[in-house]
Amino acid sequence: MTELYLEDLHVGDRFESGTFAVTEKGIVDFAQDFDPQPFHLDLDAASRSVFEGLVASGWHTAAMSMNLFVTGGLRLAGGSIGLSVDELQWPRPVRPGDMLRLNTEIIEMRPSQSKPDRGIIRIRNVTTNQNGQVVQIFSAWVLARRRPAAERSI
Amino acid sequence: MTELYLEDLHVGDRFESGTFAVTEKGIVDFAQDFDPQPFHLDLDAASRSVFEGLVASGWHTAAMSMNLFVTGGLRLAGGSIGLSVDELQWPRPVRPGDMLRLNTEIIEMRPSQSKPDRGIIRIRNVTTNQNGQVVQIFSAWVLARRRPAAERSI
Repeated sequence: MTELYLEDLHVGDRFESGTFAVTEKGIVDFAQDFDPQPFHLDLDAASRSVFEGLVASGWHTAAMSMNLFVTGGLRLAGGSIGLSVDELQWPRPVRPGDMLRLNTEIIEMRPSQSKPDRGIIRIRNVTTNQNGQVVQIFSAWVLARRRPAAERSI
Repeated sequence: MTELYLEDLHVGDRFESGTFAVTEKGIVDFAQDFDPQPFHLDLDAASRSVFEGLVASGWHTAAMSMNLFVTGGLRLAGGSIGLSVDELQWPRPVRPGDMLRLNTEIIEMRPSQSKPDRGIIRIRNVTTNQNGQVVQIFSAWVLARRRPAAERSI
């Protein structure tokens, strides 16, 4: 897949991802390492919680969404380097058996004032489940390289 | 450790965490699952990247910080349920051998208008490394339960 530079991108461009299958083991493994709370770890305890069943940690949903972003349609030259996140919400829980998918839109772009080889783009990533329900909304500023001058003149 | 209710908390309260040791294996394992980019996966490729060495995915830093939060001093009754994040930055990379620590401050509090059994608190979580350098800044609204009336009257 072609690597994209700032010059290749436009506000309003949209990109699709593949899919990520959520498993009970994946939810529990992530929680053991990073978010050891009963509603992420144990089916019985989770059924008695406010979630009424096992749910993924929000940070697990964010991590799975990052996988979909990195392997999706917006392949930035030099890699996807997030600078800051200014919105991250989990409107619905993610559960075992869910199949996640990510939709990315470029909502803002700025060339760097100080560094002529780069710019920043603001993206909005929306993660949905197999029923089209939104499980995560995420906006962030990401680094985008400018195409090197040598390549630009070809 | 005592579980804390909205009534126990005050703007300005601060909480310390334990420590989280960052390993090369931890960085690579997380990246393979969630952020498969060369500067998170491979020492040689990472040394040629903008980071000049292997660095943790920002989402791995967020996940390790969640571990420190959940196991730290602010033990919320009913668990730590994040509602929305409005700031997440990674001012410095996290590298193998780093020892992370989290400092939490309550910066805002609101009782729920519609649900008398709960409120929300806004927390600012700052993750530092062994040299006291900030590696992540994170602000979020988190659910806080009100103490049940039966317990309140005791």
